[in-house]
Amino acid sequence: MANMADGMNYAPKGKPAPVVKPGEFVFSAAALDHGHIMGMCRGLIDAGGTLKSVYDPDPKKVADFIRQFPGTIAAKSEGELLSDKDVMLIAGAAVPSERCALGLRVMDAGKDYFTDKTPLISLEQLDAAKTKTRATNKKYMVYYSERLHSEAGVYAGDLIADGAIGRVVQVIGTGPHRLSAASRPDWFFIKEKYGGILCDIGSHQVEQFLFYTGAKDAVVTKSQVANYNNPQYPELEDFGDAMLLADNGATNYFRVDWFNPDGFQAWGDGRTFILGTQGFIELRKYANIGFSDGGDHVFMANGEREMHLQVSGKVGYPFFGELILDCLNRTEKAMTQEHAFKAAELCVRAQMQADPPGPGRGFGFWFGVFGERGGGGTGPPPPPICSSSFREGQTSFMTISISAAFFSLIIGPGRSPAAS
Amino acid sequence: MANMADGMNYAPKGKPAPVVKPGEFVFSAAALDHGHIMGMCRGLIDAGGTLKSVYDPDPKKVADFIRQFPGTIAAKSEGELLSDKDVMLIAGAAVPSERCALGLRVMDAGKDYFTDKTPLISLEQLDAAKTKTRATNKKYMVYYSERLHSEAGVYAGDLIADGAIGRVVQVIGTGPHRLSAASRPDWFFIKEKYGGILCDIGSHQVEQFLFYTGAKDAVVTKSQVANYNNPQYPELEDFGDAMLLADNGATNYFRVDWFNPDGFQAWGDGRTFILGTQGFIELRKYANIGFSDGGDHVFMANGEREMHLQVSGKVGYPFFGELILDCLNRTEKAMTQEHAFKAAELCVRAQMQADPPGPGRGFGFWFGVFGERGGGGTGPPPPPICSSSFREGQTSFMTISISAAFFSLIIGPGRSPAAS
Repeated sequence: MANMADGMNYAPKGKPAPVVKPGEFVFSAAALDHGHIMGMCRGLIDAGGTLKSVYDPDPKKVADFIRQFPGTIAAKSEGELLSDKDVMLIAGAAVPSERCALGLRVMDAGKDYFTDKTPLISLEQLDAAKTKTRATNKKYMVYYSERLHSEAGVYAGDLIADGAIGRVVQVIGTGPHRLSAASRPDWFFIKEKYGGILCDIGSHQVEQFLFYTGAKDAVVTKSQVANYNNPQYPELEDFGDAMLLADNGATNYFRVDWFNPDGFQAWGDGRTFILGTQGFIELRKYANIGFSDGGDHVFMANGEREMHLQVSGKVGYPFFGELILDCLNRTEKAMTQEHAFKAAELCVRAQMQADPPGPGRGFGFWFGVFGERGGGGTGPPPPPICSSSFREGQTSFMTISISAAFFSLIIGPGRSPAAS
Repeated sequence: MANMADGMNYAPKGKPAPVVKPGEFVFSAAALDHGHIMGMCRGLIDAGGTLKSVYDPDPKKVADFIRQFPGTIAAKSEGELLSDKDVMLIAGAAVPSERCALGLRVMDAGKDYFTDKTPLISLEQLDAAKTKTRATNKKYMVYYSERLHSEAGVYAGDLIADGAIGRVVQVIGTGPHRLSAASRPDWFFIKEKYGGILCDIGSHQVEQFLFYTGAKDAVVTKSQVANYNNPQYPELEDFGDAMLLADNGATNYFRVDWFNPDGFQAWGDGRTFILGTQGFIELRKYANIGFSDGGDHVFMANGEREMHLQVSGKVGYPFFGELILDCLNRTEKAMTQEHAFKAAELCVRAQMQADPPGPGRGFGFWFGVFGERGGGGTGPPPPPICSSSFREGQTSFMTISISAAFFSLIIGPGRSPAAS
């Protein structure tokens, strides 16, 4: 029988204390388009940061924000924040397509930038962001909240660092989210604004894979997206998944979706499964289905034991204090710039590969394979709207071109029932 | 707050009773190479079947078997079983590479065949099996035990049929297994005998995907295998995973591995995650990590409720009685022949695509992508030993040939550090 230990040997290290005194690290908030801005600011404040001011063109968003953070100055323009010599960092949760542009302005103003995930939505934006960080020596940090603001997520990193499960060889992440369509802003349903499901909520997953495996680089070996059940929102992708292979041989699968049902107790049953050579870890981040005691459940088994710990309130969120000190000391302990950008790059690539420009390639493939039996004539569930196993713009580009041409020859564009 | 209901509206239907009286359905057992033969025979006996005789060339295996099933006649040869006019079906758990040949002999003898999974390990064997079933009108049924002999697995099918989670759009399955290398027979480590990890224990996963989604056909869109941590067994694949796309648009990801750690209470933390348009189901089949109350845990959430039921002893295994009646009545209620063969075909294809003949293609790809930074020079974890996103022998064969040629041109076989 397994040892159902209380995890004594793997006790959490305890919550970090504030790292600076009031006024030693002053920041502001700009662009309140996503609610994540609240968590971003809360994390920095709890770590000792001083929130001075806020700007958004929508006065209602600003009023809501100030209710959460009383005493914050409502600036009259973004420029007022950018020119404030007290402000060292600007936190922003803009519409995804605008996050990079805001970051460029922030860094040009000589401040560090802390953006909600996904930090950007195209390789062009990535290039611009990289160039600007080099030119200004400023930071473009990212709120990958599903690890950084999850005590279970943080504690998993500690367990791995302690060698509790050996070398990590694979990570599986599932990130179901509740759609709550009625409460979503318009941009949520416009793909060129939200960036696609793999780029948006998939960014959390890619970041966790890189972090838990210690990888510096990876390739997307397969990715696909679908709109399975929301035809009323034609640009919504309600499903996406991907496989990645890291430079150190570790592999990843993740699925993200907008199908979290209303009867589930939390906004999503986010899980992470980390497979090591000597054991495994499972995280139930936001709820433990069947129980009503909240989230932050960490399960682990290795050669010696089986363990279940609920780590709420026991681990804290060291990222925020580390980020403040990184800004003050120009170090990279919270997260390297390279890591932040690599996760961004890979979620963009996953999205690009799943959803290439040009009509019908994904569809054509599957209809060519299945012929008349596939979704085309029978009516029921549509296949993923696009699907690709190939990398673009690198060594296999020739393969893509050839296969695309080949399929269109034998299938013809008319066989595609819909283009995404 | 969610409704943590006791599942009253989704109560299991109760265990099935025996379907025949003693002597009405007589069967025998041949080839005791895998311990699954015990479960196969137990299932048939509990459903009313009469076990008459057993044959295996190894007297120790026969003695162990008769200890489990006292009164079984130890036959002197396989021919004695095949020529026994009382015997309607022969159950076998041969070495995987020999399962098809045994089936052909059984069907030639005018009897139905019930084999352990994986039922066969090549497309040639599949063709032979199909041809023989057509010629003899006999059955080649398969013990896909991870659904058929799992009350949680059976109950999930009932929930889906009741519409509890809407239309199934995706299935994720994880099948970690304990290696227990010391207790394994020689054939376990010889790939041409066990067939590869995706073909072997992956067959369960493919079968569940087809069943829960109601799919008739699918394609393997990505598959890969690895030997991450067992270099002492060079032909063992200790890791494999795959993605499939069904003809009805549903998708699948599964992972199988031999990393289940000794500290875990069961032989593997087998899970199934079934995503529907209106909810989801999670199965924890063999254990509920962190608890010591056994397996068969079913979790479900949909628009109305969140539910947790442990269904041990409440559902039973209807497959076996249905199979007996199918044999007597020449019906296909337990499982259609088409379904049994399609799961077999797809696990073989997943294996073939992950591990094509010819040296170095999989490796070559990744080393081409990562250049010197990949596992080649740095020493640490090896990448998956082979990897492929392509289908062979069908519409995309041309793509494979071209890409393989392309990669060998730019990379060269010398860059591959090992061939599987």
